Amino acid sequence: MDVEIHANERVDALFSNGIKVIQSSEVFSFSLDAVLLADFANPAKKKEQKIVDLCAGNGAVGLFLTPKSSAQIYEVEIQPRLADMAKRSIDLNGLEERVTVINDDLNNVFEYLAKDSIDTVTCNPPYFEDQPDSKKNPNQYLALARHELAVTLEQTIEQASGLLKMNGRVSYVHRPERLIEMIELMKKHRLEPKRVQFVYPKRNREANMVLVEAIKDGKPGGLRFMPPLFVYEENGKYTEEVRKIVYG
Amino acid sequence: MDVEIHANERVDALFSNGIKVIQSSEVFSFSLDAVLLADFANPAKKKEQKIVDLCAGNGAVGLFLTPKSSAQIYEVEIQPRLADMAKRSIDLNGLEERVTVINDDLNNVFEYLAKDSIDTVTCNPPYFEDQPDSKKNPNQYLALARHELAVTLEQTIEQASGLLKMNGRVSYVHRPERLIEMIELMKKHRLEPKRVQFVYPKRNREANMVLVEAIKDGKPGGLRFMPPLFVYEENGKYTEEVRKIVYG
Repeated sequence: MDVEIHANERVDALFSNGIKVIQSSEVFSFSLDAVLLADFANPAKKKEQKIVDLCAGNGAVGLFLTPKSSAQIYEVEIQPRLADMAKRSIDLNGLEERVTVINDDLNNVFEYLAKDSIDTVTCNPPYFEDQPDSKKNPNQYLALARHELAVTLEQTIEQASGLLKMNGRVSYVHRPERLIEMIELMKKHRLEPKRVQFVYPKRNREANMVLVEAIKDGKPGGLRFMPPLFVYEENGKYTEEVRKIVYG
Repeated sequence: MDVEIHANERVDALFSNGIKVIQSSEVFSFSLDAVLLADFANPAKKKEQKIVDLCAGNGAVGLFLTPKSSAQIYEVEIQPRLADMAKRSIDLNGLEERVTVINDDLNNVFEYLAKDSIDTVTCNPPYFEDQPDSKKNPNQYLALARHELAVTLEQTIEQASGLLKMNGRVSYVHRPERLIEMIELMKKHRLEPKRVQFVYPKRNREANMVLVEAIKDGKPGGLRFMPPLFVYEENGKYTEEVRKIVYG
């Protein structure tokens, strides 16, 4: 299939799985967050199962899940230009049969998908609260992807929980300073956190990312803190473990 | 001063600071938890300031804080036999002028110390909930030190908060599976968590200890996750960083 790549767009490949993603620094580019989220998640694997990626952006997380799963994947993205890039990336990888873009506000997701019908949800939400005094990117595409302008963390969690079947799993990537709030919101919405992994830029630096997996209606307790992940060696190169995730 | 060491007791020294502690595997021995808690805490340093160690056991944490601070230190321990060991360890180190044992239930601590009068609190509480079906150590000394039989986590946090001045700091060491509960209880009792450090037995193992520092009436938010601490190398020897803390 011929896929149009617009001016100011490029195609990046994730070497570890050969997935190609249409990117544009003008509107949104996936970054290590998306790669680590897809690696951390334990997606449902069977053909008849369903996965939803919320706040999908240009669809990188959903695409990165395809080599790990045969399930149907739905990418929910509010911004038309990003949703269009996501659609073209799906075509570029020949994954039209398995991956579908839903270009709408995730608060309307039940117009497309039934409640309690999804096996796995992933979400890489906007990281920053929309505070009156917070500086937003003048680029509206990036502002929406980074700040909670269109959606709040709680809305994403409420929708994730509504989508999931009992015992379905949701995985998030977020900033560590939002972890406690995120866990409280998950518990409030029937999602029991089970696995946390911190990501540190280097060995002696503070964590700057955190991955969390929760189970819908899971038994309370038993939260595990997985071995930490370091991104860079002191010399600025990827660590062995991140190199494996990125390059295979 | 001559200090009596009873049968079944021994004197262990922490090499990094030369502090000697009377230990007994029959009743209680300090372990790495106490060493790491004393290292993690940022105690008040001035002579006129006050530090309280709750659930003091044989007094190791309080003693380990003395090289870092000139403040008055109070060790609160409910078990008479442990409190007696703590007193003799203070004598053994010639620290009678600076360290005092309060042999009582921490729920009575305000009979000895004024509310809102303490600069720093440390606490290495019993780790395990007292559940009807939980196995307790038949040794009552160890059972009390390990299980929440005499005191609950919330009681320790409530008393820590009551003791602390505004902007005073409290540091806890606990099991990671209790972290979320601990943070919720801290927030409930006016203690705002500011710093968390996970301790991993080895590089690729899950965390088995966590250190948390909170500030009384601290501004909400800004929780930092410090670089992780690994205890052992793959060969079973202490890592460089733990060796420094233990041996100096």
